[in-house]
Amino acid sequence: MRKATTTTAGASAGLTETELAALDAHWRAANYLAVGQIYLMANPLLQEPLAPEHIKPRLLGHWGTSPGLNLVHTHLNRVIKARDLDALCVWGPGHGGPAVLANSWLDGTYGETYPDVGRDRAGMERLFRQFSFPGGVPSHVAPETPGSIHEGGELGYSLAHAYGAALDNPGLLVACVIGDGEAETGPLAASWHSNKFLDPVHDGAVLPILHLNGYKIANPTVLARLPESELDSLLRGYGHEPLHVTGDEPLAVHRAMAATMDRALDRIAQIQRDAREGRTTDRPYWPMIVLRTPKGWTGPHEVDGLPVEGTWRAHQVPLSGVRDNPEHLRMLQAWLRSYRPEELFDAMGTPDPAVLDCVPAGARRLGANPHANGGLLLRDLPVPPLERHAVRVDKPGTILHEPTRVLGSLLESVMEATSGRRDFRVFGADETASNRLEALYEATGKAWQAETLDTDEHLAPDGRVMEVLSEHLCQGWLEGYLLTGRHGLFSSYEAFAHIVDSMVNQHIKWLRTSRRLDWRRPIASLNYLLTSHVWRQDHNGFSHQDPGFVDHILNKSPEVVRVYLPPDANTLLSVADHVLRSRDYVNVIVAGKQPGFDWLTLDEARAHCARGAGVWQWAGTESASKTRYREPDAVLACAGDVPTLETLAAADLLRRYLPELVVRVINVVDMARLLPHDEHPHGMTDSEYDALFTTDKPVIFAYHGYPWLIHRLAYRRRGHVNLHVRGYREEGTTTTPFDMVVRNDLDRYRLVMDVIDRVPGLGVRAVAVRQTMADVRARHHTWIREHGTDLSEVVDWTWTG
Amino acid sequence: MRKATTTTAGASAGLTETELAALDAHWRAANYLAVGQIYLMANPLLQEPLAPEHIKPRLLGHWGTSPGLNLVHTHLNRVIKARDLDALCVWGPGHGGPAVLANSWLDGTYGETYPDVGRDRAGMERLFRQFSFPGGVPSHVAPETPGSIHEGGELGYSLAHAYGAALDNPGLLVACVIGDGEAETGPLAASWHSNKFLDPVHDGAVLPILHLNGYKIANPTVLARLPESELDSLLRGYGHEPLHVTGDEPLAVHRAMAATMDRALDRIAQIQRDAREGRTTDRPYWPMIVLRTPKGWTGPHEVDGLPVEGTWRAHQVPLSGVRDNPEHLRMLQAWLRSYRPEELFDAMGTPDPAVLDCVPAGARRLGANPHANGGLLLRDLPVPPLERHAVRVDKPGTILHEPTRVLGSLLESVMEATSGRRDFRVFGADETASNRLEALYEATGKAWQAETLDTDEHLAPDGRVMEVLSEHLCQGWLEGYLLTGRHGLFSSYEAFAHIVDSMVNQHIKWLRTSRRLDWRRPIASLNYLLTSHVWRQDHNGFSHQDPGFVDHILNKSPEVVRVYLPPDANTLLSVADHVLRSRDYVNVIVAGKQPGFDWLTLDEARAHCARGAGVWQWAGTESASKTRYREPDAVLACAGDVPTLETLAAADLLRRYLPELVVRVINVVDMARLLPHDEHPHGMTDSEYDALFTTDKPVIFAYHGYPWLIHRLAYRRRGHVNLHVRGYREEGTTTTPFDMVVRNDLDRYRLVMDVIDRVPGLGVRAVAVRQTMADVRARHHTWIREHGTDLSEVVDWTWTG
Repeated sequence: MRKATTTTAGASAGLTETELAALDAHWRAANYLAVGQIYLMANPLLQEPLAPEHIKPRLLGHWGTSPGLNLVHTHLNRVIKARDLDALCVWGPGHGGPAVLANSWLDGTYGETYPDVGRDRAGMERLFRQFSFPGGVPSHVAPETPGSIHEGGELGYSLAHAYGAALDNPGLLVACVIGDGEAETGPLAASWHSNKFLDPVHDGAVLPILHLNGYKIANPTVLARLPESELDSLLRGYGHEPLHVTGDEPLAVHRAMAATMDRALDRIAQIQRDAREGRTTDRPYWPMIVLRTPKGWTGPHEVDGLPVEGTWRAHQVPLSGVRDNPEHLRMLQAWLRSYRPEELFDAMGTPDPAVLDCVPAGARRLGANPHANGGLLLRDLPVPPLERHAVRVDKPGTILHEPTRVLGSLLESVMEATSGRRDFRVFGADETASNRLEALYEATGKAWQAETLDTDEHLAPDGRVMEVLSEHLCQGWLEGYLLTGRHGLFSSYEAFAHIVDSMVNQHIKWLRTSRRLDWRRPIASLNYLLTSHVWRQDHNGFSHQDPGFVDHILNKSPEVVRVYLPPDANTLLSVADHVLRSRDYVNVIVAGKQPGFDWLTLDEARAHCARGAGVWQWAGTESASKTRYREPDAVLACAGDVPTLETLAAADLLRRYLPELVVRVINVVDMARLLPHDEHPHGMTDSEYDALFTTDKPVIFAYHGYPWLIHRLAYRRRGHVNLHVRGYREEGTTTTPFDMVVRNDLDRYRLVMDVIDRVPGLGVRAVAVRQTMADVRARHHTWIREHGTDLSEVVDWTWTG
Repeated sequence: MRKATTTTAGASAGLTETELAALDAHWRAANYLAVGQIYLMANPLLQEPLAPEHIKPRLLGHWGTSPGLNLVHTHLNRVIKARDLDALCVWGPGHGGPAVLANSWLDGTYGETYPDVGRDRAGMERLFRQFSFPGGVPSHVAPETPGSIHEGGELGYSLAHAYGAALDNPGLLVACVIGDGEAETGPLAASWHSNKFLDPVHDGAVLPILHLNGYKIANPTVLARLPESELDSLLRGYGHEPLHVTGDEPLAVHRAMAATMDRALDRIAQIQRDAREGRTTDRPYWPMIVLRTPKGWTGPHEVDGLPVEGTWRAHQVPLSGVRDNPEHLRMLQAWLRSYRPEELFDAMGTPDPAVLDCVPAGARRLGANPHANGGLLLRDLPVPPLERHAVRVDKPGTILHEPTRVLGSLLESVMEATSGRRDFRVFGADETASNRLEALYEATGKAWQAETLDTDEHLAPDGRVMEVLSEHLCQGWLEGYLLTGRHGLFSSYEAFAHIVDSMVNQHIKWLRTSRRLDWRRPIASLNYLLTSHVWRQDHNGFSHQDPGFVDHILNKSPEVVRVYLPPDANTLLSVADHVLRSRDYVNVIVAGKQPGFDWLTLDEARAHCARGAGVWQWAGTESASKTRYREPDAVLACAGDVPTLETLAAADLLRRYLPELVVRVINVVDMARLLPHDEHPHGMTDSEYDALFTTDKPVIFAYHGYPWLIHRLAYRRRGHVNLHVRGYREEGTTTTPFDMVVRNDLDRYRLVMDVIDRVPGLGVRAVAVRQTMADVRARHHTWIREHGTDLSEVVDWTWTG
């Protein structure tokens, strides 16, 4: 290990010996507390010789990264206090939960949040015992950890979260520790370029701290094994000015780290001043720190004859046999005593004043910064009255609108209304315009700090539309933005939402956990608009067809997930209005961008969306049976814009060809309505469901996605055996809209045939109608190959009921 | 646009005017054919004035990237021919399908593959018409495209595919065109560091060609808007030697490109010679090319008063109103004529010899290289007899093994047996050892080209275990490796398989399509081992719990996807043996790494896995009813190692507490067995299912993952109404193994209670037994909080039947 060096020679001159000793005391205390959490369930202050019964029965946790995180935390404390900074830290190596928990306990926020784990002996014992213990706290930085906006279990998202937090927070510094393991992931590798989207005027600063301790679980890391010049070139290529701190001598590293932190913060302050006072509009080269210290630093150097400190063996629990192996027990005691706990804590467990010397006060503490509990700062979003944006519908199924374009005008209003507050952003993977949300550019630009040419449009350093060809970045930025108390929407091609399956998993887990913590205030929901969907990949074809994100989402915690399939423009507005006002959910909206029929007026749309699923009386023939009410012979249900079109067209055909048949038409907007009431808060009761779908009539359900999803939602219902679902069966590629539905047996003619096949006793006339339907389908197959277009009776169809 | 420059002054000296003219003719021909595909359905040679009826009714495709791809293809042709190279190209901007199709048509492979689209007038007309036309070919490079191993629809994976193709192919050059849009994605950003894993001795070379045309769909790209010095620094930081080609004057760019290609290939040859002849072991700085040309180069410069060429407006179809707008029609004709087609093709549509001058012959053609149809090169994997690796089982449920460790010994044998052939690799995100597959290191090392320290273990430049902390890279490398005719396995923590949800979607789509193409030969299956699963996240907790990858996979094309949950070591061996020999599937195996009971001998395991689901006679009590056969009162079904343990323990409890009850125990290994026979080739017929599960008895199904998956698979079955599933309901975090199952109601005591609740007429004794079970659960809850360990009766349980 090289000795401590810093790129600023002599810059540590400012640190007195007393300050240095106090910083080291804080660091030692945090290290002691981290080790204690991994090993001890009693005797927290080592007031008696360590015995097997003081040791946890199961040793779990990650020591390797902890001393480095403690070093960073100690030094962040110092500069926050010295400069009165408003600062957050995103701890990428979140497996180092013991470190962040130790610091939160030390700065007092842990005890304020959890009064039984206060800054005394009993609190320390609880801190130790609860860690990775059944009924206790997870081993990672997690929602339960005060001051955190980032669960460190799955790696890759720290830097994107940090940038999301910094956006529109000009007074905030967001430090971000990036482990060299995490740095190998794709999302993290992409995140470095986030600095091309950060406005030094309106946004805060991100200070990346790349922590090279050299190893991941079982291997060296790529970045730690590059020559320093090559790493330096890489980081400069990312647009940063890297400052290097390297060493394994604690006091030397403290000096170097303090000097380098000062240099970085001075540079950040200068960048912000220059930009805010208009002295420069050049994209700045933001400073960052490369911290190179040993893995498991200050832990056992060698165990059972094998090197541990500074190797991958220090990753988790360096001494594993402590309860049964007296030598390991002895080594643990020596290790703990090496921090000189008697200097750090009094007999009551209270930290010595020197230990706390660097700790800032009140909300300046990293564990207490309100940005890390974003709900505290959240303001309601000014969503304008929908009347201003709704489309006029005099008669259903006769006028076409592009639903997402109508939504775009609503979003423009929200963007406009937040132009002063700057707490709303829209994110997209280079698809905002393709998804027909261009109206947004009337209210704001697309964030862009890199070079701009005369031919560019809508680029703006302070724009609040975020466009980058990375779903990971969109998702990560948005999560960071929401977790710090702001609002947003992510629009994506439907198929490519799967790119963030794993990220949204973690966000849902975060929300589910934080909802159960009283002290975490609700935050704005994470809202997806999935468009350019499976049915309209006219030129992208098979690779762009995947409706499965909804399936993925509906597997997750029902208190968090919501899925909406508005069938037209006004229902999309109503759903959008709802989700933009909601809290602590992940809302998925699937809606088309291609021209589609308007079915409902705004008032009807609102009522329909409030119910979530309901009969469209005007579309069925129940009320047409003038003389007396007759139960329907069949139910046509639908969810999604294309299935709704085909279902309505099928209802139209049935009315014309089989007028004696009584048909009910149901549209489902809120997919969770189909779930049992006790499985999802939106689920219908059985009596509601039975009244809607009947218990014994055939239900032909035309669904947007994989058909079995409907069965998975409705299998407990009485009428389930009569449920026949049509949906996407992975057929079709580059073709016309109607050919897609034909290939997947979701077309109007097929739906009519399905009804005829399932309603008993229809007689010979129905047989003839069925043949007519089959004939049209056959005609379609011939025509499409010849002409590449759809039949005129399909293209020209409008609702005539 | 800057003029053409190259870092090698004067290096183009070698190109004669004739060669230059021929290269340009090839490029113009390819451009002409690309435009023709987007626009024309007749009059392919412009032998009459262009009229609206010659134009496709729907104009679809991506022009913007096409001229750049054509340039690269032309120049690859040249060097392949000149140097007799064995070369592949991965076309990252796969939306430029027209370009790659044009080149494949020109080099003759298209006509050889699809004889009705040959190199004549009629073939050209079909080439044009079929493009993005219903029943035709997709607009992207796709399985249908000869010479391709990479679908260009979803972006991000080109470079990882290229590296996967190059591994263990020392004679192969893999060029890879990376669009500057794709370069913003996370997976691509991570892929640059793949060069730390490429062995210049045993692997081939990858030549990245970063194509900066400046724009994605609607925005400039980040990399194109960096100062060249900053981009250069970035690429050097990635470990490359970047060579820049910039320009918009065709002939100058041809000269620069030719010289730069030569320089890059000379350098590659030198790197390989130095390494292979032992002159150096330093990690080389591989060359790469930065090609900066205008988007939509040579297309319309301005349309309707707006700039197009060189802007994002050239991305798709620059002239959109050609059928209805005579001015657009005129511009299209002028555009097409600008390539001087009459010089390029004769009246029969045959390309002029000068056009084909650069095209290599036979299998050297990019469209015909056998590596791009990997099944041609595939050899059966030498999987050793399982007997050598099986565990001995004298009595079920009494001996423990770590199943994945047993699998590791099998994989070691395969690795050993392929040490000469080098056509098998194992991939993992830094988890191979954690997943207990360390035995592999007896046979090979972990691929590593970066710095090595004395304390490192198992690192080797020529290792065939691939470890990097990126699931995206593991997946991408493996896909490239398989598609070029080799074998492999990807082991992952179960939860984090979701990181590659979207990648595996695309691979499944590829397989599904290629299975339908006779000329594509079957390739080895993509095999996942998911371990460190949801039930055993003792210290990682909630963030590491997610069994949903199976749900994701089972939504996909049934001819491709297979899911196996072997319950013990020998069944895991049997399943692994099967999947390693299989072709054209995506196989998912979910298996534990923690010590678990052995249930079956190898012979029993083989028979059980061949059935996929079956009764474990010895575990139930059907045969115990000595006097006469009685139908079971209840069925206990299970899938997955932990559910199998709990089910067997429940069967044990029922035998002891309610001996009069007749219980059948079923274990399911192959999840698709539950599907109807007509929905999946592995699906049971109804009579098979009914015989196994009964049609009227309560079935208590303990399943590894989300319980509703079982309902989604089995909802059509007669006995479905009696099916009661227990599984993971997102409960529990950092806790003990048994506490996890209790929290999710999957534990043995709960299963016994479920049986009692569902079998009618059991009487008062059963009520007492039920209470006993409830009491143990209550005792567990108290004990776990106090001690952090599981009850001794659970820990010590073994099968006693």
